[in-house]
Amino acid sequence: MYAEIITIGDEILIGQIVDTNSAFIGKALNSIGISVYQITSVQDDKTHILKAFASAEKNADVIIITGGLGPTKDDITKHTIAEYFNDELVQNDAVLKHVEHLFKTYISTSPISDLNRKQALVPSKSQVLMNNFGTAPGMWFEKGDKTFISLPGVPYEMKSLIETKVLSKLAEKYKRPYILHRTLLTYGLGESSLSERIEKWEDALPDYIKLAYLPSLGRVRMRLSAKGFDENLIKNEVERQIQLLLPQVEDVFVGFEEEEHSLEQIIANKLTDAGLTLAIAESCTGGKLTERFTANPGASNYFKGSTVTYATQSKIDVLGVLNEDIKKHSVVSNRIAESMAVKVSELFNSDIGIATTGHAGPTKGEGKEEVGTVFIALATKNKVFSERFTMGNHRTRVINKTVNKALELLQKEIFKN
Amino acid sequence: MYAEIITIGDEILIGQIVDTNSAFIGKALNSIGISVYQITSVQDDKTHILKAFASAEKNADVIIITGGLGPTKDDITKHTIAEYFNDELVQNDAVLKHVEHLFKTYISTSPISDLNRKQALVPSKSQVLMNNFGTAPGMWFEKGDKTFISLPGVPYEMKSLIETKVLSKLAEKYKRPYILHRTLLTYGLGESSLSERIEKWEDALPDYIKLAYLPSLGRVRMRLSAKGFDENLIKNEVERQIQLLLPQVEDVFVGFEEEEHSLEQIIANKLTDAGLTLAIAESCTGGKLTERFTANPGASNYFKGSTVTYATQSKIDVLGVLNEDIKKHSVVSNRIAESMAVKVSELFNSDIGIATTGHAGPTKGEGKEEVGTVFIALATKNKVFSERFTMGNHRTRVINKTVNKALELLQKEIFKN
Repeated sequence: MYAEIITIGDEILIGQIVDTNSAFIGKALNSIGISVYQITSVQDDKTHILKAFASAEKNADVIIITGGLGPTKDDITKHTIAEYFNDELVQNDAVLKHVEHLFKTYISTSPISDLNRKQALVPSKSQVLMNNFGTAPGMWFEKGDKTFISLPGVPYEMKSLIETKVLSKLAEKYKRPYILHRTLLTYGLGESSLSERIEKWEDALPDYIKLAYLPSLGRVRMRLSAKGFDENLIKNEVERQIQLLLPQVEDVFVGFEEEEHSLEQIIANKLTDAGLTLAIAESCTGGKLTERFTANPGASNYFKGSTVTYATQSKIDVLGVLNEDIKKHSVVSNRIAESMAVKVSELFNSDIGIATTGHAGPTKGEGKEEVGTVFIALATKNKVFSERFTMGNHRTRVINKTVNKALELLQKEIFKN
Repeated sequence: MYAEIITIGDEILIGQIVDTNSAFIGKALNSIGISVYQITSVQDDKTHILKAFASAEKNADVIIITGGLGPTKDDITKHTIAEYFNDELVQNDAVLKHVEHLFKTYISTSPISDLNRKQALVPSKSQVLMNNFGTAPGMWFEKGDKTFISLPGVPYEMKSLIETKVLSKLAEKYKRPYILHRTLLTYGLGESSLSERIEKWEDALPDYIKLAYLPSLGRVRMRLSAKGFDENLIKNEVERQIQLLLPQVEDVFVGFEEEEHSLEQIIANKLTDAGLTLAIAESCTGGKLTERFTANPGASNYFKGSTVTYATQSKIDVLGVLNEDIKKHSVVSNRIAESMAVKVSELFNSDIGIATTGHAGPTKGEGKEEVGTVFIALATKNKVFSERFTMGNHRTRVINKTVNKALELLQKEIFKN
């Protein structure tokens, strides 16, 4: 069975915001066996929205609509849905009470107004999905076998409604297949070389297992996707295929990248389990490596802290890197990366220290190395080592590739024991 | 005139990646007067792609297609386009030479293979847009007044082709109107209150100026969008309307958020111009505030460095915050935030220090304050002050709202003189 996601808002079409809602919804629907047929982003325009509804109704069983539910004049989704269903807006007392409660509790600075109260008007044929985090309720419409679901565009309001209301109601209404995605993370080999190496295996995959290659920033992700009503068959066959594949890619395989297991989370879990602590000395990555860890709950279990020493003098003042080492080896060098890694683990009293130094560009900093040259060092209680990389000449890519590479070095180090 | 963007790839529909390409393309097209009618994300499926092409051809003058141009079997865009145009694939010698060059220069680890060479096959009716950064060329097709443009899905390859090839060719081919977006950044007032306050002004806007409200993380962005063939009229009228609006929102107005002017860039420019330097002491924001600055080129002009002192002991060891202050005031307090701001500016020898400390959640750390309580402090050579905020109970939101609030405090401080 299929869903279509319709996101409403000129801000998406003019590129003022990136639509992150659709990816979240797609992943959530897949988890209960619903495939997304298409994602369609349309303008804040009644005719266009109506056209998208009609088209989606032909393609999909479930139509999920986000955006356009605010209290201001540019928000027209609710009226347009009412028109599509030949319906009228009526006041929902539970929503009104909720809106009044929200204003009383959180928005005491401005009094509740008629505009806010209008958030409690909903099409009479809809079932309300109460939105705990905002004034715009979710709405659920049935039209024969088809379901239209309208959700607010504010990401955390939408997410909460999907997780607490929408998925369970959809699971109750529809018989759904089982969908499984398993993604192998590899690095060090291009997608064409990979694909040639495993061609025989790929050609022998059963029809219901699909393989996709996703190259990005020095890595290739290989995703196996399968769908069907026999959950056990799917699980077993995908697992069997992975066991056939792994020996062929052993030298480039990093790990599995499943929903809750980004590389930084795999590392975080391992460090926590082993009772090891981490400190980070960043230069060219400018805080981004640290942020990958601290974005997740539980970071305080293993993460001691970081320094971002952007200026050369700060490497001396804050970390205690020796001035003569910088003069002799230059600030972008194995020696300074290693010194940073050792010093930061001493400073924060951590078991492991990791450091980055390099030229992210677009202009070259101090030292003799070119833009894109990066050194990453790792220090433990017993040893320190570093590697040199050339990451190209695109600032954002240099930063992101360096962050990825640092995570890979760290993962290799802590999993090899 | 209108464009439609079609992104191809199951990875988008299953939520494995967020489609950031469309926002970039939308913004780029707007800059030369082309509006995006719709963004459509479709599966790696021939029938579906063909259907999307036919539908887009009805809606739009320009159809921009991204994705599905890789060398592996799951990439079917090129063959599907050839079928749509009743065309056949032929070898393009310039592309072949380029592919061979790329392999020789950058991918020496694996030899060039037949799969890679097939990247040089292009539909005979297409004009090739050379892709300097990858093996998949862009392709340009004309069908009467309509133009189909196929681009690789790798963001930096796509971006380079848009900027260096596509925009100029479109500008040459089509007569385009002028599109202007101006966005006012406000904080401290909800969208409904804002909209009520400026209702008279909004109702009197001319037809060709559209107003949109974009609430997010404690801010409301108000976007004025206008389109027409008289560029001067549009510029003047939008400016006149802004001058009428500003006195009405003076108390909540932060600045304009235009393409190249995010709040951190406005701050960066001001610091650079004034010759002031910045250091940051982060706790609950975990590196994210620093990363907002270092993501942009030129950060080394004003940014000295940061500490992320996640563990309480690190605040003592690394920053020199006094243990007795922590005991007396608790680690999440005005006093410790201020101490961190002062100490970090001393440590990095910067003119300004800014600090965050708080509980991002989901579980409470040390101290008596609840999850979501955050203190932000700012220190200059002459003074230090701090503010207390409650940011709700959602980890990612607490972090992001704190980063925004810190940027706002800093902006207020450096622009008031």
